[in-house]
Amino acid sequence: MKIEAVDFFYLSMPQVEDIGDGSQDALLVRVAAGGYVGWGECEAAPLVTIAAMICPMSHSACKPVLASVLGASLDSPADIARIHADVHQNSMDLLQADHALSGIDIALWDLLGQRYQEPVWKLLGYERAYPKTPYASMLFGDTPQETCDKVRATRERGFRVVKLGWGPYGKTTPEADRDQVLAAREGLGADGLLCVDAGTVWADDLALGEARLAALREAKVYWLEEPFHTGALHVYKALATLSAPIYIAGGEGAHNEHMARHMIDYAGVGYVQIDTGRIGGITVAKRVVDYAVQRGARYINHTFTSHLALSASLQPYAGVREHHLCEYPVELKSLAYDLTSEHLLPDANGDIQTPDQPGLGIAPDVAALRNYLVDAEIVVNGQTLYKTPAL
Amino acid sequence: MKIEAVDFFYLSMPQVEDIGDGSQDALLVRVAAGGYVGWGECEAAPLVTIAAMICPMSHSACKPVLASVLGASLDSPADIARIHADVHQNSMDLLQADHALSGIDIALWDLLGQRYQEPVWKLLGYERAYPKTPYASMLFGDTPQETCDKVRATRERGFRVVKLGWGPYGKTTPEADRDQVLAAREGLGADGLLCVDAGTVWADDLALGEARLAALREAKVYWLEEPFHTGALHVYKALATLSAPIYIAGGEGAHNEHMARHMIDYAGVGYVQIDTGRIGGITVAKRVVDYAVQRGARYINHTFTSHLALSASLQPYAGVREHHLCEYPVELKSLAYDLTSEHLLPDANGDIQTPDQPGLGIAPDVAALRNYLVDAEIVVNGQTLYKTPAL
Repeated sequence: MKIEAVDFFYLSMPQVEDIGDGSQDALLVRVAAGGYVGWGECEAAPLVTIAAMICPMSHSACKPVLASVLGASLDSPADIARIHADVHQNSMDLLQADHALSGIDIALWDLLGQRYQEPVWKLLGYERAYPKTPYASMLFGDTPQETCDKVRATRERGFRVVKLGWGPYGKTTPEADRDQVLAAREGLGADGLLCVDAGTVWADDLALGEARLAALREAKVYWLEEPFHTGALHVYKALATLSAPIYIAGGEGAHNEHMARHMIDYAGVGYVQIDTGRIGGITVAKRVVDYAVQRGARYINHTFTSHLALSASLQPYAGVREHHLCEYPVELKSLAYDLTSEHLLPDANGDIQTPDQPGLGIAPDVAALRNYLVDAEIVVNGQTLYKTPAL
Repeated sequence: MKIEAVDFFYLSMPQVEDIGDGSQDALLVRVAAGGYVGWGECEAAPLVTIAAMICPMSHSACKPVLASVLGASLDSPADIARIHADVHQNSMDLLQADHALSGIDIALWDLLGQRYQEPVWKLLGYERAYPKTPYASMLFGDTPQETCDKVRATRERGFRVVKLGWGPYGKTTPEADRDQVLAAREGLGADGLLCVDAGTVWADDLALGEARLAALREAKVYWLEEPFHTGALHVYKALATLSAPIYIAGGEGAHNEHMARHMIDYAGVGYVQIDTGRIGGITVAKRVVDYAVQRGARYINHTFTSHLALSASLQPYAGVREHHLCEYPVELKSLAYDLTSEHLLPDANGDIQTPDQPGLGIAPDVAALRNYLVDAEIVVNGQTLYKTPAL
């Protein structure tokens, strides 16, 4: 097969709020080859990512991402790996390229799955997919009471693992943060697994992270996520040395395999959190899974958007039984919920199953998405390089 | 002062060739505040970088770069540092943000220099600017003879240091590469300093780099640049352990301070090469200079474009006497040459002086640039988010 068409659809809520909720817009990717269609999603700024797909060439190592994709052969996973190598060589100086490639890669795997009538995880070499225990991923409340109430409600919905992040956490005093995490623990009950996401709020200041450790231990927090910017490897490492028994987690900012390895090798994270929609897609995420297994770190998805993105994020480690937690977004905006008509719901055990159907096993709800479609147009020297296609 | 306006100008040669020459287009940035104007340049894909400046917000950590710049206070270098912190917090998930910020940062420093009638290097705290020895930066010829001839011609123009890069180097056999570097040495003469740039051609394959070391030693090469992708830190380190007396150089791909530190701390480079137009501007480059000095690595600019970019790249280490080499592009396309009417030419000693005039000490030739101005327009849901402004 040859890749005949790659289309992007910029979707958005009518109003995007100034909150840490990444489900307010989306960039959906559709790839066509040999009569098959595959879908993917970039977890990335839609307009900038579209520009990276179609921009004019600046020089031999700064070409638009599509230059390495359109017309390429696609018959096997090896073809996808070759496309990756080409994009990295031809778009090396295009910083947004990895985010753009992510959605394309996911769509290519979905398409191969349709072609061979196999789920992606089988194409990745796994013999079976193991159930994952979902953690409900949500934002801190504005007050400890609000946090307690929302965590309690989530527990009552059946979630045994909850992660709270962003909101006020880390921005004022250690005492205020203690009140928040103890309130979360109260809402969850003593036997639930509680995680905290600091959202890089302490940049690279070790002392600010260290000052929160006592309260995190008091609340029996399982992991502390993203205390620092992704690149502050030595600061991560220093905190990881002090934080036991609390794991340090991080990696969602990784936009290539190298950065994920650095989190394991130099930052000392116990959990490496990979967003398939950012790191370069399923191909790169699978390489990180293999590396994490080899190095004794635990792999986990980062997903805060649609169930298409969720399926794509589960495929890379579906077959690794020991890495059994998964992030499960529970505060989706309607766009992210409506993006697919089917959803990956917890089973009777409260677990999430990676779909057994061909490809991602879940497809966009095209009719519903027309309500969210953003009309965008990019014109350079009189030539229309992008115009939102019909959905 | 408040930042009143930030404008971007996409400039391009009429034809962009598929060669490793980054001087074929440019993104010029103009900032206005308090009656002053500053200019900067992003070493980045223009269209994608413009999109990063003006894209709609996706969520609280994925805002357009301009959201943290327009209307901000600007009276001192501390204000620029605050703008950096704001961009990193508010545009964290916008991968192209650092490339966009680079040109803005340079323009902000230029503007402060106009305001206080001081060269940027004085505002950075240096008491004087030391001359730099330029190395002529050029592409390998297609054949060893062509390489020999062009290096000889460059030597005859007075350059004592030459760096050859890209072209056929590293792509076929070690024997072919040996012929190229020996031809370069022949053209340069025994007493010149010769450097080789592999342009990341060996990705992360140590053996491919190691196989070239003998010939590089035979040609008495001073440094080997970018044998691998920027992120392949452990492979860099392994080659650096084997390469003496040849230094390993790298870092042009760094788009934040962390990545530059990783090149020093984990990759073991002897020379850290920073592109002010990519890493986040003069502010971030200066932090890398300080870190390199502290860690005993040598700082050097990466510049392959205009003399506006060249001045911006010299400012961060103008006052560090011991770090005395500088990259000096000698094969500029007319756009990059015409971008400024004045140029930083070698003095009687063959050295380059960082300008002593306010700001960058060199300004765009606006009239000449009108011939290169690209007309671009970005429209989202009927709203024009960008249209090339008048120059």
